[in-house]
Amino acid sequence: MSTSTARRRVLRVPVSGAADYRADLLAVEEPLEIRVDGEPLTVTMRTPGDDIDLATGFLFTEGLLTRLGDVREIRMCDENVAAVTVADDGGRLRARVDEVNGFQPAARNFLTTSACGVCGKDSIEAIRVRSAFDVAADPVRVSPAVLAGLPDRLRDAQRVFSRTGGLHAAGLFTPDGTLLVLREDVGRHNAVDKVAGWALRSGLVPLTGHVLLVSGRASFELAQKALMIGLPVLAAVSAPSSLAVSLAEEGGMTLVGFLRGTTMNVYTGPQRVITEDAPAAVG
Amino acid sequence: MSTSTARRRVLRVPVSGAADYRADLLAVEEPLEIRVDGEPLTVTMRTPGDDIDLATGFLFTEGLLTRLGDVREIRMCDENVAAVTVADDGGRLRARVDEVNGFQPAARNFLTTSACGVCGKDSIEAIRVRSAFDVAADPVRVSPAVLAGLPDRLRDAQRVFSRTGGLHAAGLFTPDGTLLVLREDVGRHNAVDKVAGWALRSGLVPLTGHVLLVSGRASFELAQKALMIGLPVLAAVSAPSSLAVSLAEEGGMTLVGFLRGTTMNVYTGPQRVITEDAPAAVG
Repeated sequence: MSTSTARRRVLRVPVSGAADYRADLLAVEEPLEIRVDGEPLTVTMRTPGDDIDLATGFLFTEGLLTRLGDVREIRMCDENVAAVTVADDGGRLRARVDEVNGFQPAARNFLTTSACGVCGKDSIEAIRVRSAFDVAADPVRVSPAVLAGLPDRLRDAQRVFSRTGGLHAAGLFTPDGTLLVLREDVGRHNAVDKVAGWALRSGLVPLTGHVLLVSGRASFELAQKALMIGLPVLAAVSAPSSLAVSLAEEGGMTLVGFLRGTTMNVYTGPQRVITEDAPAAVG
Repeated sequence: MSTSTARRRVLRVPVSGAADYRADLLAVEEPLEIRVDGEPLTVTMRTPGDDIDLATGFLFTEGLLTRLGDVREIRMCDENVAAVTVADDGGRLRARVDEVNGFQPAARNFLTTSACGVCGKDSIEAIRVRSAFDVAADPVRVSPAVLAGLPDRLRDAQRVFSRTGGLHAAGLFTPDGTLLVLREDVGRHNAVDKVAGWALRSGLVPLTGHVLLVSGRASFELAQKALMIGLPVLAAVSAPSSLAVSLAEEGGMTLVGFLRGTTMNVYTGPQRVITEDAPAAVG
């Protein structure tokens, strides 16, 4: 049993018949505080594990960090506290952290300015963070058969790690369907940040030519995180939101939803999905 | 079609055979800014609809508002901006808003103090918001048969409103299984806040003797919101997290998970679940 699961006695109750106590495995949820130069930046509720990757990925996908060189060190100073030390030449990160107005991350729950940032503006413009990478130019193409096989590969890999039924998963794949890394968390944004941090520390960002699969729905937040690490293809087992589709379209990212069984919905960027009998409008 | 859904042309791609374009309904996700006395407090990504309830519920379940009398008015000043005006005798709300350090909500992503709030402390203590209500004393009892019937009632009611497959739902029930209100959102915390706001404005808070059902998993955040509005029973179709269980136990709330088919797991507060053949350890 890893630290990502906790054993708990639970009363199993049937509608008819006798109730009985049995052991149950829960997904662990604990707060992780991220500090920059000793000052608290944010607290995220996450499943312990890969916390350095989570902190690294969070800073990057929220636009607070644009290159790893801006950081001297990221270490755990406590099991639930990740401490980031800014490098001497990382004044930009430090300034950026100060800039977000009392340590408010850009895209989650807060506006980046004290003025009205939404009223009268295009809502995407008000809340999005600009990516350093041009995803639209990525020429990668993926076949529907490869895409259709990804959820099973993700679930097979999850089976090894998870027995709780309570964890979201994010998996990074090559265009031929090879799984590079799988990360799980009670929060789907954390699972994506853990993948992002792993990719950053592995020197793979921007993730040109790669595919990210998430086990649930695709929200604006996930689409934004995918764009921030240069992913050309984001696939979700379930539905995307309207704003995720709008952002993917604006950023030139391929967004695939309802990737289940032998079909999928391609919401944006269909030129990257190879189809034998593509209708004329594709591309 | 309501403003909670948006029509979109999508390329439906099968693994073999021809792809074709068809119409698809997306769950709308848009940012809602909540302002207090003209100053931005927070932005939440939500599905439009019941926004006044969402703003009211958010302020209450995050501990920023403890009685409706502290508010003079909550109105939409724009389709994506809810403006809260604090009442003359609502100085406590105003002070509480100022107190949360540059407008940081208590329990979501930020610590309420600039000092380390997690390191070395019990993690629940560091992030939880105290409820004004004593849920532990609530004597309500619910039968397993009633509980088992709730997910179908929620889904039946959802069918009327939603056709996107992309929305979380929260439903408030009486102990005999009568649905009082259903709210949907791309964010499950928003669905619960919408129910909370409706209950507040209907004079039903604290929700003594009521049951809240959520369509997905039960996180710490949802358990906390349920406690803040005095709910004695929180039920989830899927898994709870470890911290949700810990918080429910500490608060004396009954937490039911994996409420599917004809069985359920009772994680805390089993004395409220009536079982014919309860083992001696129950209660």
